Amino acid sequence: MSEQFPLPSQTSSSNYAIIVAGGSGTRMNAALPKQFLLLSGRPVLMYTLEVFSRSDAKPELILVLPQSYHIYWKDLCRAHNFNLPHHLVNGGDTRFQSVKNGLELLPDEALVAVHDAVRPTIDAATIDMSYQVAADKGSAVVAVMSRDSIRRVTENGSEALIRDEIYLVQTPQTFQATLLKDAYNVPYRNNFTDDASVVEQAGHSINVIPGNYQNIKITYPEDIAIAELLLKQKATL
Amino acid sequence: MSEQFPLPSQTSSSNYAIIVAGGSGTRMNAALPKQFLLLSGRPVLMYTLEVFSRSDAKPELILVLPQSYHIYWKDLCRAHNFNLPHHLVNGGDTRFQSVKNGLELLPDEALVAVHDAVRPTIDAATIDMSYQVAADKGSAVVAVMSRDSIRRVTENGSEALIRDEIYLVQTPQTFQATLLKDAYNVPYRNNFTDDASVVEQAGHSINVIPGNYQNIKITYPEDIAIAELLLKQKATL
Repeated sequence: MSEQFPLPSQTSSSNYAIIVAGGSGTRMNAALPKQFLLLSGRPVLMYTLEVFSRSDAKPELILVLPQSYHIYWKDLCRAHNFNLPHHLVNGGDTRFQSVKNGLELLPDEALVAVHDAVRPTIDAATIDMSYQVAADKGSAVVAVMSRDSIRRVTENGSEALIRDEIYLVQTPQTFQATLLKDAYNVPYRNNFTDDASVVEQAGHSINVIPGNYQNIKITYPEDIAIAELLLKQKATL
Repeated sequence: MSEQFPLPSQTSSSNYAIIVAGGSGTRMNAALPKQFLLLSGRPVLMYTLEVFSRSDAKPELILVLPQSYHIYWKDLCRAHNFNLPHHLVNGGDTRFQSVKNGLELLPDEALVAVHDAVRPTIDAATIDMSYQVAADKGSAVVAVMSRDSIRRVTENGSEALIRDEIYLVQTPQTFQATLLKDAYNVPYRNNFTDDASVVEQAGHSINVIPGNYQNIKITYPEDIAIAELLLKQKATL
């Protein structure tokens, strides 16, 4: 089910990060899944793994990737001299199943951050805050307030929602491991759009912590250039 | 209350656009309001006005700007040889009052698009669709589906909303003029975050039309570089 690549981790951290790279690239008009697209010449996924390894939390890294891409990923690691230790786990048919596969590697006493592979511009300070808050309160879900007015559109028309109450949820979403494992011990449901929704359905409340707008999710081809720009801005801070 | 600058419009269009530039720049850590920041060397506001003038709708342009910036704007127009005809109207204390001031120039039989001055990357095709749909249905409000999971956060905690129902509302928001003028003929309320919310409070339903994620609102300093990038991408399409 899992293997360690490129070499077994030597850490005994109780912090883990599950990096979910489930996408098969259907929305990018590209044969290549988004996590492999090049950001200033290097695959998106490498930036994402690196920022977690740079954080003070120094989590043990669990990369969940469709099995059909494991060899390709190893080739990429060799080609780019990417030597960051990480576990490699098979992805599932859904994001839910992918995370569930990653959870199997976790001891109960751990903290675990679940993060989208296609959010390479996350900053280490936010990652660290998420572990700190999750240690204290059980969960820490990174989110930003909406800049735009918000409208709920249904078959019966649309209605304005109260903007100040609406948060756009990002990742990382960080939890005490037992909490998250228990919550995932259910069948898949359609409204499981993120880990917070799974934990909430299990009856737990969710702590939201402030993220920032630079933590973008690479969803469309145009986003690659924006991510490159954001990484350059960070590098010059 | 209003004047025409740099020269009186020669059009007899029944299409109007109110470009709202109310911001005094408090969120940008900059003395200069966002609409005046430079995008590849030219003020944001000029791009916004130009894309409306390039649209097939060819609306008469009404720029609402705080009175204290009128002379500065005229100086900018001269310095940049910006000769696009537009009305110049005093801004109010709120966005609501600014739009209301702009509405005074409108004949009843017109269509009017209200657009944020700080959304210079809007495309002409979306503008035109908004006029077409508003002509047919009374309103057309540009919005995009949320890419992120959505959470409502209140004093009592947070709860996941159904992502597929949630739209992030942008501008333009285009209406039959009588509809919008009637709706604005009320005292200001705190939940008037956009024109759609004003029209909805007046008892009308709102039509949402699809926008795109490139129609960003310049809210933070980092957004300027992203807007430059998006404009360059458009220029090479």
